Amino acid sequence: MRARAQGPLSGIDQRSTPGFDGGKSAGKAALKARGALLAGLQERLYAHGRSGDPRSVLLVLQGMDTAGKGGIVKHVMGMVDPQGVSHASFGKPTDEELAHDFLWRIRAKLPAAGQIGVFDRSHYEDVLAVRVHDLVPESEWSTRYAIINDFEADLVAAGTTVVKVMLHISTDAQRERLAERLDRPDKYWKYNPGDIDERQYWPAYQEAYQVVFDETDADTAPWHIVPADRKWYARLAVTELMIEALGRLDLEWPAPDFDVEHERKRLAQT
Amino acid sequence: MRARAQGPLSGIDQRSTPGFDGGKSAGKAALKARGALLAGLQERLYAHGRSGDPRSVLLVLQGMDTAGKGGIVKHVMGMVDPQGVSHASFGKPTDEELAHDFLWRIRAKLPAAGQIGVFDRSHYEDVLAVRVHDLVPESEWSTRYAIINDFEADLVAAGTTVVKVMLHISTDAQRERLAERLDRPDKYWKYNPGDIDERQYWPAYQEAYQVVFDETDADTAPWHIVPADRKWYARLAVTELMIEALGRLDLEWPAPDFDVEHERKRLAQT
Repeated sequence: MRARAQGPLSGIDQRSTPGFDGGKSAGKAALKARGALLAGLQERLYAHGRSGDPRSVLLVLQGMDTAGKGGIVKHVMGMVDPQGVSHASFGKPTDEELAHDFLWRIRAKLPAAGQIGVFDRSHYEDVLAVRVHDLVPESEWSTRYAIINDFEADLVAAGTTVVKVMLHISTDAQRERLAERLDRPDKYWKYNPGDIDERQYWPAYQEAYQVVFDETDADTAPWHIVPADRKWYARLAVTELMIEALGRLDLEWPAPDFDVEHERKRLAQT
Repeated sequence: MRARAQGPLSGIDQRSTPGFDGGKSAGKAALKARGALLAGLQERLYAHGRSGDPRSVLLVLQGMDTAGKGGIVKHVMGMVDPQGVSHASFGKPTDEELAHDFLWRIRAKLPAAGQIGVFDRSHYEDVLAVRVHDLVPESEWSTRYAIINDFEADLVAAGTTVVKVMLHISTDAQRERLAERLDRPDKYWKYNPGDIDERQYWPAYQEAYQVVFDETDADTAPWHIVPADRKWYARLAVTELMIEALGRLDLEWPAPDFDVEHERKRLAQT
């Protein structure tokens, strides 16, 4: 129930719900049921991490402002045990971060063994915002696609399953969401006047995203474009992507590395 | 609905449910209802953090093996938005950690503005396990109570609300929980033969905990001893402690730092 990054971004309807026939209430019910499965798989991944298995999962979330990245963290990752989730959000780089290569701050936040890492924005901003706003010379950002591919290939080789999601919204949906933030005092804190400035660059961002998909959609670290005008659908779709990624790891409960009978006897003597 | 650390630890019944009259099913229902309130308060704290307010909350969880620290993280902190929670668990120190003072690794994991930090074990292990097993000379660990008090006073002064919880279980409850880990293949990964060795030191640990309460129960960073033989009660009690801590911060929604009408007009023009 997700689109691999095939064909142009412009051909994808942001209000569509590919792979799911029901509406909002059916979608919410499905999310709850599937969340229980996701939580079970996550616990097994965590158990493996504690038992010496180096594997981990990394969910990379990208999308325009208001696309719903935070909602995915809250409503999808919020369904699993917080002990097994490491969350990192990447804003405007600090001076210290700028003094290092662009992957430095990313590497520092990679998930440990057994963890699901969630990146709210990521190294892709270094070929998105950076490209759109000419924050570094083209000679520099243009090399980053290959650097990113190498980086992710190394990650995968070291045991991290990489799931890359672009939450794809329409300009109309963004306008509505920004308007809501301006209408509700409990949402003011989410509003940033700079979001309107960024809105002017919409076509440039869509183009930059398209280049990202063309250049970095690897079989081992695929991109998934998730229509996100309907929040309930995007949450369900990302849940399914995570279930699929964890399911591919074949996570049986780890075997004991101790003699169960012997330990039972020791315990009985205490 | 919690005991402040008054009077000796030995006087507290681990199966008691102070402040709550109902049983398990009422307790679980209460947890769900109170969890919604906790999630609302946490969102306000997060909003303040994003708006320049330096305040944060730190929950320190201590207790013997199987006391339910992980369950608190999963079932209490699991009720709030993962974006607003930073979780750290402190095991046996690494060589790098041992090459620094004992608070070094603790400071590195303190919650940022607007965050709830959760420590699964903490700097208190440096006067618990360390004291019980003579891991450093008494001349060294004996100075740590004062160092901890200063450290926590500084934290509080800088805007962090510190909530310290000891999950208090009985030796019988621990035996049952360890036995369950040996009976269920989906729990083997939680079992560590070293837990039985530690069990021999139970009285020494209880004594070391008592000294902790006697030396570090400050009004600004109080200890709460939570009876924890009934998991549902401990989870509810910690939820109430967190609600109380957040409630004391008087968290209204932050005022906008922009002109709402002006922004509405700008948005309409896009």
